[in-house]
Amino acid sequence: MSVKVAIIGASGYGGVELVRLLLNHPMVDIVALSSVSYEGQSISSLYPSLASICDDVLEDSEKAINKADVVFAALPHGLSEDIAYQCFIKNKIFIDLGADFRLTSESDYKQWYSKEYKYPNLHKESVYGLCEVNRELIRQSRIIGNPGCYPTSIALGLLPALKNDLIDCTIIIDSKSGVTGAGKSLSVTTHFPECNEGFSAYKVANHRHVPEIEETLSTIAKEKVMVTFVPHLLPVNRGILSTMYATLKKEISLTEIIALYRKEYENEYFIRVLDEGKCANISHVKCSNMCDISLHVDERNHRLIVTSAIDNMVKGAAGQAIQNMNIILGYDENTGLKAVPMAF
Amino acid sequence: MSVKVAIIGASGYGGVELVRLLLNHPMVDIVALSSVSYEGQSISSLYPSLASICDDVLEDSEKAINKADVVFAALPHGLSEDIAYQCFIKNKIFIDLGADFRLTSESDYKQWYSKEYKYPNLHKESVYGLCEVNRELIRQSRIIGNPGCYPTSIALGLLPALKNDLIDCTIIIDSKSGVTGAGKSLSVTTHFPECNEGFSAYKVANHRHVPEIEETLSTIAKEKVMVTFVPHLLPVNRGILSTMYATLKKEISLTEIIALYRKEYENEYFIRVLDEGKCANISHVKCSNMCDISLHVDERNHRLIVTSAIDNMVKGAAGQAIQNMNIILGYDENTGLKAVPMAF
Amino acid sequence: MSVKVAIIGASGYGGVELVRLLLNHPMVDIVALSSVSYEGQSISSLYPSLASICDDVLEDSEKAINKADVVFAALPHGLSEDIAYQCFIKNKIFIDLGADFRLTSESDYKQWYSKEYKYPNLHKESVYGLCEVNRELIRQSRIIGNPGCYPTSIALGLLPALKNDLIDCTIIIDSKSGVTGAGKSLSVTTHFPECNEGFSAYKVANHRHVPEIEETLSTIAKEKVMVTFVPHLLPVNRGILSTMYATLKKEISLTEIIALYRKEYENEYFIRVLDEGKCANISHVKCSNMCDISLHVDERNHRLIVTSAIDNMVKGAAGQAIQNMNIILGYDENTGLKAVPMAF
Amino acid sequence: MSVKVAIIGASGYGGVELVRLLLNHPMVDIVALSSVSYEGQSISSLYPSLASICDDVLEDSEKAINKADVVFAALPHGLSEDIAYQCFIKNKIFIDLGADFRLTSESDYKQWYSKEYKYPNLHKESVYGLCEVNRELIRQSRIIGNPGCYPTSIALGLLPALKNDLIDCTIIIDSKSGVTGAGKSLSVTTHFPECNEGFSAYKVANHRHVPEIEETLSTIAKEKVMVTFVPHLLPVNRGILSTMYATLKKEISLTEIIALYRKEYENEYFIRVLDEGKCANISHVKCSNMCDISLHVDERNHRLIVTSAIDNMVKGAAGQAIQNMNIILGYDENTGLKAVPMAF
Repeated sequence: MSVKVAIIGASGYGGVELVRLLLNHPMVDIVALSSVSYEGQSISSLYPSLASICDDVLEDSEKAINKADVVFAALPHGLSEDIAYQCFIKNKIFIDLGADFRLTSESDYKQWYSKEYKYPNLHKESVYGLCEVNRELIRQSRIIGNPGCYPTSIALGLLPALKNDLIDCTIIIDSKSGVTGAGKSLSVTTHFPECNEGFSAYKVANHRHVPEIEETLSTIAKEKVMVTFVPHLLPVNRGILSTMYATLKKEISLTEIIALYRKEYENEYFIRVLDEGKCANISHVKCSNMCDISLHVDERNHRLIVTSAIDNMVKGAAGQAIQNMNIILGYDENTGLKAVPMAF
Repeated sequence: MSVKVAIIGASGYGGVELVRLLLNHPMVDIVALSSVSYEGQSISSLYPSLASICDDVLEDSEKAINKADVVFAALPHGLSEDIAYQCFIKNKIFIDLGADFRLTSESDYKQWYSKEYKYPNLHKESVYGLCEVNRELIRQSRIIGNPGCYPTSIALGLLPALKNDLIDCTIIIDSKSGVTGAGKSLSVTTHFPECNEGFSAYKVANHRHVPEIEETLSTIAKEKVMVTFVPHLLPVNRGILSTMYATLKKEISLTEIIALYRKEYENEYFIRVLDEGKCANISHVKCSNMCDISLHVDERNHRLIVTSAIDNMVKGAAGQAIQNMNIILGYDENTGLKAVPMAF
Repeated sequence: MSVKVAIIGASGYGGVELVRLLLNHPMVDIVALSSVSYEGQSISSLYPSLASICDDVLEDSEKAINKADVVFAALPHGLSEDIAYQCFIKNKIFIDLGADFRLTSESDYKQWYSKEYKYPNLHKESVYGLCEVNRELIRQSRIIGNPGCYPTSIALGLLPALKNDLIDCTIIIDSKSGVTGAGKSLSVTTHFPECNEGFSAYKVANHRHVPEIEETLSTIAKEKVMVTFVPHLLPVNRGILSTMYATLKKEISLTEIIALYRKEYENEYFIRVLDEGKCANISHVKCSNMCDISLHVDERNHRLIVTSAIDNMVKGAAGQAIQNMNIILGYDENTGLKAVPMAF
Repeated sequence: MSVKVAIIGASGYGGVELVRLLLNHPMVDIVALSSVSYEGQSISSLYPSLASICDDVLEDSEKAINKADVVFAALPHGLSEDIAYQCFIKNKIFIDLGADFRLTSESDYKQWYSKEYKYPNLHKESVYGLCEVNRELIRQSRIIGNPGCYPTSIALGLLPALKNDLIDCTIIIDSKSGVTGAGKSLSVTTHFPECNEGFSAYKVANHRHVPEIEETLSTIAKEKVMVTFVPHLLPVNRGILSTMYATLKKEISLTEIIALYRKEYENEYFIRVLDEGKCANISHVKCSNMCDISLHVDERNHRLIVTSAIDNMVKGAAGQAIQNMNIILGYDENTGLKAVPMAF
């Protein structure tokens, strides 16, 4: 018996990645794809990679929701609340890849997204869908705020260190993201000749993911965590590598830290803690839901350095959203997510 | 009930792509991986993308063969015959990704590969594994010579035109291949700074795939086909695009040609004939077993122009090899090969 | 004594490449940059690479022309005629990087560019600026139609063969261009994630450069030359490689053909005819005004195969335009154009 | 009157970049190129980009030195001392692109390079060639240790902050380098399919440039500076971007910091301090001797964030070496180094 799934905002990069992954999910039947901008066109006319595999026509969101048991939305911020509300009253499971249900603090949302909540009560029903952290809450929820791509790579990389009180609560995070992270919208920055062979930071210490990162890390650490977060645009299609710098609070060897991380993640299919001396690489997780974590100690400066690698489109978006669905529906968490990383 | 599979030469790019794809094949149990160069090491120490998913240790080829029902080999030319012989006498199915069983003509093999056949009779048992052409023969064979990557893209692109006698038998083929086609061996040509942002032809009209291309096309056309074949090295990881130029023998519109191609391929899951005005692109077949074909007519010069796109590592190697296995074992031909193209 | 130069359309890729090259020209003083779209802004605000080196403000075209002795225009087709007319009556040298002055045949211009000539007589004053072919005519002209990027790579690659009557007049040309060839305008095709790791043909046998190519080759051959021309988009910033296929009319060895090409080009600083067995590569001419040509014979099919490589932005646009200026002004032809190719 | 220059180790990437740049230096005559590995071959047979422009044959180092007034060496560490000694006794100017003359501390050299000094006294004659810092010392020296690529980007980015006591002496540096930084040697890491579309850190907090960075920064700060330095391999040909994190010691606005940086660098041709809100990008300095610096303040965490961008092959190696030569010989510092950045 398969579950009926609709994707709202299917024409964007997050949406089409959901389509790609869900087409190979053994328990899923995609019943509707929706897009405001391209209504009436087929998804495969926008993405010829899907031709003959999925030629579904993009339709109205309300019709789409009505057909489905589970609704995913991949929309610009501010547009998901209405979808969530409809799903809620119609008793559908709703998983949001946008930013509307990620933050606990409404004032943070206002500050960083310049919007107010339309249905404040709805947010009390929602759970932050960081699977490895909130698994039990997710299982009981019907509204999921799927984490941002940067916050996912960061939270998974720091969780064991924060939970075990290894590090100070002031952390420097230097992240690098592939260009699909910027989405489908055209811009000078993502025009091939300007982007290719280039590299720079952007929104230095001023990215919208900061409150989400700090809220998540603070919850894990059980104290206020502050981060300096600098994202960079990497001239590759997929992948995020976050390099994180934290001061060690106690004397502990790298071997012990690795053991502690492995203990923490021993039952996590999607997380791989690398051997001493190895470095996480985005190409080793490409097109998969894996998160690779490598650990390093700068003894001279008493610092822990963590690098974590994910595919921003999979573990950082569509893959983790499906993992959330699997949790809610009681499937094995890796159902439909066992694709082996591409390597090249 | 799954089939037991061994991969000989698992440490090369063709071998590891087989591992990647077979790990997601629902009917396959990988029982052994073999490599002369890396015996005793785990495949995941060579390819960290496989860590925790497949940490099998590379072992001796003879042991590997004994454990398996189906044996794939991805070896340099000249090394597959012995494996094939062992499989034959032990009654195993053998699928060779190398060049040893591709040519019907032993003299062509001698001329282009500077080797003689060690077991000439074995070659009489083998079938050229171009699935869309030789499906019935493949089904009854136990030794398959899996086609080369360039020949696959070319034969599929020209088959309907040759079979229907639309074009002259002198064809110009301008092919472009991603760098994985050059394999795992280090070379100046594939050193990142020399390769990236570069582009050139190589082995102009002198590539080893020429006899395979001509033999295959001649069989399809039922007359001697001659080609001028020029391969180029494309600074991308995956993909082959072949642009083919042939003189039209008769008055026929592009619309009719497209209809004829679609008729020819109507039952082929892996072949997509694009709409008029569209161009095949390697990014639309990436990481999949698909072959996209676009058709164009230069009316001023009475020429048919065909472009065909495949992933050289999948449809051009490991994917087609698995498709061959599926045919022999009576599985649906797309079993384990339904991964949707990556697009980006 | 330096010459005063203005660049109209300085904000596009062709324009800014002129700025880059002319800043290093020892005899040139850039007196004005003009742009309709960005008037009032500095060129370095658009292209931060120029900051502190050239912070000139983009101004009105008429003012710019008045200040200059030599005017370059890099504009969309149809917009150069007015500039040319102003230059003509004001007795300025005018060098057009656009398409308006490339074709001799007005009917070809109408057919391919859907425009009529506004000043038909002006076109009689203009010369097609293919330096290695029209040097003497260029020297005496004051209006130059700088060749297109594809036609430059093609004409230089075929000139000696056509001039010496080595090949048939039906030629197949498979060209591949870097993405700067598509210019500064944003499009899905040149959006990084869609372009990177992709490759396809476009405008198959239907590109606007066809009439220019055929006109140029016919003039060289002194008979009607017909081409099948298929351009492809290459995921690199710079470079065009054209692979050309022609039937040999006579028995001639590759050694003799190379000798003949070298004889033809012995005094050409910018043309390098490669040794037998070598292949032209866009990375060996990158950022330079060089054109590399490699020659190959397919004896089995009596075909000559020529590959020629240029930097589309330099020899295919701004560099050749400057070479034209040097010829007209009596400077050494390589003045300001001696930058060594980047290699990587 | 030109100066006679020899390049020892001309066949490596540093060497050939010197050749490329010096060919366009108006005061330089390249009199000899030397290479142990390729003696007797022409430099253009190794780098076809140089064909017809420089076809010099690689010769013995001693002969090369004898012909020259200025000797550049671009050799693996440990091999420059002998060359330096020969130059010293023959009264030639010697500029070393390797690591042998970069460190003041011999014990650091022993620790990080596992070698002892052969001519300890020679090191007392040498000056660390960071032009913007040591200009006066360089002018009077005849042995220059040209700075490493990472240390150059870092020292220039931090100099004004350290000199003006704005920041703490514990700094985190996250650097990203293009692949030419790894040189000409083949390796799995730089094999195109493994490198392209990949990204990872390497030698985390354990890179040989650490002592050079700390020594240089400590000299500038006049107190001991400690760094956590993490380099990453960026899948582009050229460029280093260093992102640096330091704690502000005092209340100071970003506007004031930018003003202070601009004051510090007001006479430096090669350094550009970007406007508030802009981010340094490697593509804006590509193929040039420029260093772009952008400044950012994380007020919430009282941190200064500096990003600096250079071309690792030019300002990070050959370009800075030539700048050193210009200083010693009394030429304008930008002679032969005025090439405008490529942008794309």
